[in-house]
Amino acid sequence: MRYILKISYDGTNYCGFQKQVNKITIQGELERCLSQVLKDNISITASGRTDAGVSAIEQVCHFDCEQELDKHKTMKYLNVILPQDIQCLSIEKTTLSFHARKSAKKKTYEYLFYVGSAVPVYDKFATNIGYNIDISKMNSACKYFIGEKDFSAFCASNTSVVDKTRTIYNLEIKPIEENLYKLIITGNGFLYNMVRIIMGTLVSIGLGKISVLDVENIINSKDRAKSGKTMPSKGLFLKKVQY
Amino acid sequence: MRYILKISYDGTNYCGFQKQVNKITIQGELERCLSQVLKDNISITASGRTDAGVSAIEQVCHFDCEQELDKHKTMKYLNVILPQDIQCLSIEKTTLSFHARKSAKKKTYEYLFYVGSAVPVYDKFATNIGYNIDISKMNSACKYFIGEKDFSAFCASNTSVVDKTRTIYNLEIKPIEENLYKLIITGNGFLYNMVRIIMGTLVSIGLGKISVLDVENIINSKDRAKSGKTMPSKGLFLKKVQY
Repeated sequence: MRYILKISYDGTNYCGFQKQVNKITIQGELERCLSQVLKDNISITASGRTDAGVSAIEQVCHFDCEQELDKHKTMKYLNVILPQDIQCLSIEKTTLSFHARKSAKKKTYEYLFYVGSAVPVYDKFATNIGYNIDISKMNSACKYFIGEKDFSAFCASNTSVVDKTRTIYNLEIKPIEENLYKLIITGNGFLYNMVRIIMGTLVSIGLGKISVLDVENIINSKDRAKSGKTMPSKGLFLKKVQY
Repeated sequence: MRYILKISYDGTNYCGFQKQVNKITIQGELERCLSQVLKDNISITASGRTDAGVSAIEQVCHFDCEQELDKHKTMKYLNVILPQDIQCLSIEKTTLSFHARKSAKKKTYEYLFYVGSAVPVYDKFATNIGYNIDISKMNSACKYFIGEKDFSAFCASNTSVVDKTRTIYNLEIKPIEENLYKLIITGNGFLYNMVRIIMGTLVSIGLGKISVLDVENIINSKDRAKSGKTMPSKGLFLKKVQY
């Protein structure tokens, strides 16, 4: 039987989602705790990995097991055993045709950032991008990223992925509070560090280091050296996975 | 000479704002660091204390010193010495007629809360109020708190304050994200635990334990036993002080 497991985590203290030997990861903790609750050896498949330090408001996984589960009881026991920074949102039965990664249609990430002086409360979840940043320039550059494109210029160089074409459905910056903003990006998939490099490129645009009109050239160049720096993982959240 | 010091802090790891012997407090750290930077014995006066665990996006203080200060240099040095969870936003010269507490006209606090399953990222700054809460009921109760009233029913019993009349200019709940909300409250001053007890009363209303129509009776009763519980300090932020 196959179950959908929705989870939420603060990735600050983890070496990313994917299980690794001798490292504490989200997948490692989830599999350890779920195996303990179900007294079985459970493997978990997520919609995708998140990098070290990246959090998820809602991540979707699936797992198979032999038993018919009491969903509420299992979720309750699982949340007692799980570390406080990983929590189960829901468990639902599904069919074997569902696959957390392969069936995913769209993913939305958010990158939280703020401008101006350091605000310790914001530092808990957002990245400070400093003073004198033109947010409206950043916003006007967003439209150039939308569509089906080869995003090679926005992919960390140490990747084995060959096809770097992805479709971005939406990219925009919205204010949350005075000085605090979020970048919202929805796509059919993301390359390694892609959101953090797009964010770094937008910061360079906001600082006037890259012109808004250069964005198309940077995309067309397929050259990682032409785009902005990779922003810190703090501030990046997997918000939603759509099927 | 008198200076206005604007600061921002994450109060999680402090025993409140006010200096106390053998306890780590915001005021204690500020005075220690500012005295070190100015090589003088500096006393700080804030717009008001915040309780243990309460944070400030922008708190306003004043201090006196003999020297003419280089504002930017002083701020820079101060921020290097201050703990990372207390940071100086600005230093500005003012006149001796300005007093951070006595000159304050309005203060705005925000209480961040969320409903539904535990979300570890939200737990960093907001309080989970559980399932099946009627936010629209909470919102419709807000108007009864607005105006000049005796808020004895919303004051912790262990207080020495005699006059418990305060004026609330605005009280409303606004959505931030799906399931995440903030209560915004602006008043000319607040009694001990007042925001947290008003929030606890609104939660009781959202849960159907107190009727919206009972709010006026609770206020008129001046009886702390009739209002809701004191909500946790996590989620409470001093947002702005107006002069």
